[in-house]
Amino acid sequence: MNQIKIAKPILWSYFQSTCSWRVRIALNLKAIDYEYRAVDLLKNKGGEQFSKEFTNLNPKQEVPILFIDNYLFTQSIPIIEYLDETRRHGARLLPDDPVKRAKCRIIAELINSGIQPYQNANVIKKINAEMGKDKRKDWLHFYLNKGLNAVEEILKETKGRYCVGDEITMADLFLVPQVFAAKRYKIDMSIYPLINTINSELENIDDFLRAHPYSQPDFLRI
Amino acid sequence: MNQIKIAKPILWSYFQSTCSWRVRIALNLKAIDYEYRAVDLLKNKGGEQFSKEFTNLNPKQEVPILFIDNYLFTQSIPIIEYLDETRRHGARLLPDDPVKRAKCRIIAELINSGIQPYQNANVIKKINAEMGKDKRKDWLHFYLNKGLNAVEEILKETKGRYCVGDEITMADLFLVPQVFAAKRYKIDMSIYPLINTINSELENIDDFLRAHPYSQPDFLRI
Repeated sequence: MNQIKIAKPILWSYFQSTCSWRVRIALNLKAIDYEYRAVDLLKNKGGEQFSKEFTNLNPKQEVPILFIDNYLFTQSIPIIEYLDETRRHGARLLPDDPVKRAKCRIIAELINSGIQPYQNANVIKKINAEMGKDKRKDWLHFYLNKGLNAVEEILKETKGRYCVGDEITMADLFLVPQVFAAKRYKIDMSIYPLINTINSELENIDDFLRAHPYSQPDFLRI
Repeated sequence: MNQIKIAKPILWSYFQSTCSWRVRIALNLKAIDYEYRAVDLLKNKGGEQFSKEFTNLNPKQEVPILFIDNYLFTQSIPIIEYLDETRRHGARLLPDDPVKRAKCRIIAELINSGIQPYQNANVIKKINAEMGKDKRKDWLHFYLNKGLNAVEEILKETKGRYCVGDEITMADLFLVPQVFAAKRYKIDMSIYPLINTINSELENIDDFLRAHPYSQPDFLRI
């Protein structure tokens, strides 16, 4: 498809959203300049994601959304795969070897579909309201530990300096935001030595630091 | 990596698991013969997935697992992407165009991370125990409708005969099992005309029929 490339990509993001954070790291690693549009998921009662305007952009009422090359894309994994397929400069987010690519995607999915759906603001609000605070803690600890345990296990096989070998890959973009979220939910991370070591390697890299929630323009608003 | 190719691939599967079903369709579309190993997720109290032997294969204690080319792979999306990258025969599960590839992946993720985590046996058991039967119904209807609504919306843009254009893609492998699950949970599917039309096109294709839960060797066991 020949589309006229227009000016800057636009990212709809929320500073604390782990899914937005993954895409922010990818955009930084690919050195893609973009316009940041903050969507306040917690503002007022419902959150800005439920507005008519935003729902038109994404009926799932979630961030991130990336507008790039004249298209709107949702869902962090498809966005990151698209960026890697269409931008060959900067870090290669998926290695060439199909087995290593699969391992990167497995780590990403363990977090994306295995943990994140159980810790997002929407589900936690529901669990809190229906089950109460103690059960909310049990819920979070059960799903986060189940997922993190599986990540720690696969890292025994795939790890180098980073999640899969010695180059940064898509897997690393999922690890760092997830570790941050786990700490916020007071998960005992001392039982995950590989996750910790790799996270420490990654979190101070400039492209990761600039994607951190505290570095986002909407951080100061709350 | 040069690995010695050994005999038949092995799929650990449960007949009713939507995630296993997706991979069964992919294997059929690629004409890959495989050994079926049934893992009974509901047997006894805990289910066979919690056995020590199975946990060694997959610490996440989930099906599917595919052993192929001397490697073990988990997670349906990475498995399907791997099959498509390494087997160029049979259906192409992802189109060449990067925008269309992204759209296929978005539809797959809307189901994989957007719906499935809220309807799997493990979470439903928890919701039932903690919130009761009525709330369980509300939970399922909320998350399934939220996800199916987003799928119906994106199909307006991507649809041809199938989910993305006129060729079968990865998106279709996610749609058919999800529609089956939604019907089982008594979701009113009449409000999703595009999903229904495309599902009807797909469900009677031989490679889909042979992957159906009722065609699996473990179906008769319960």
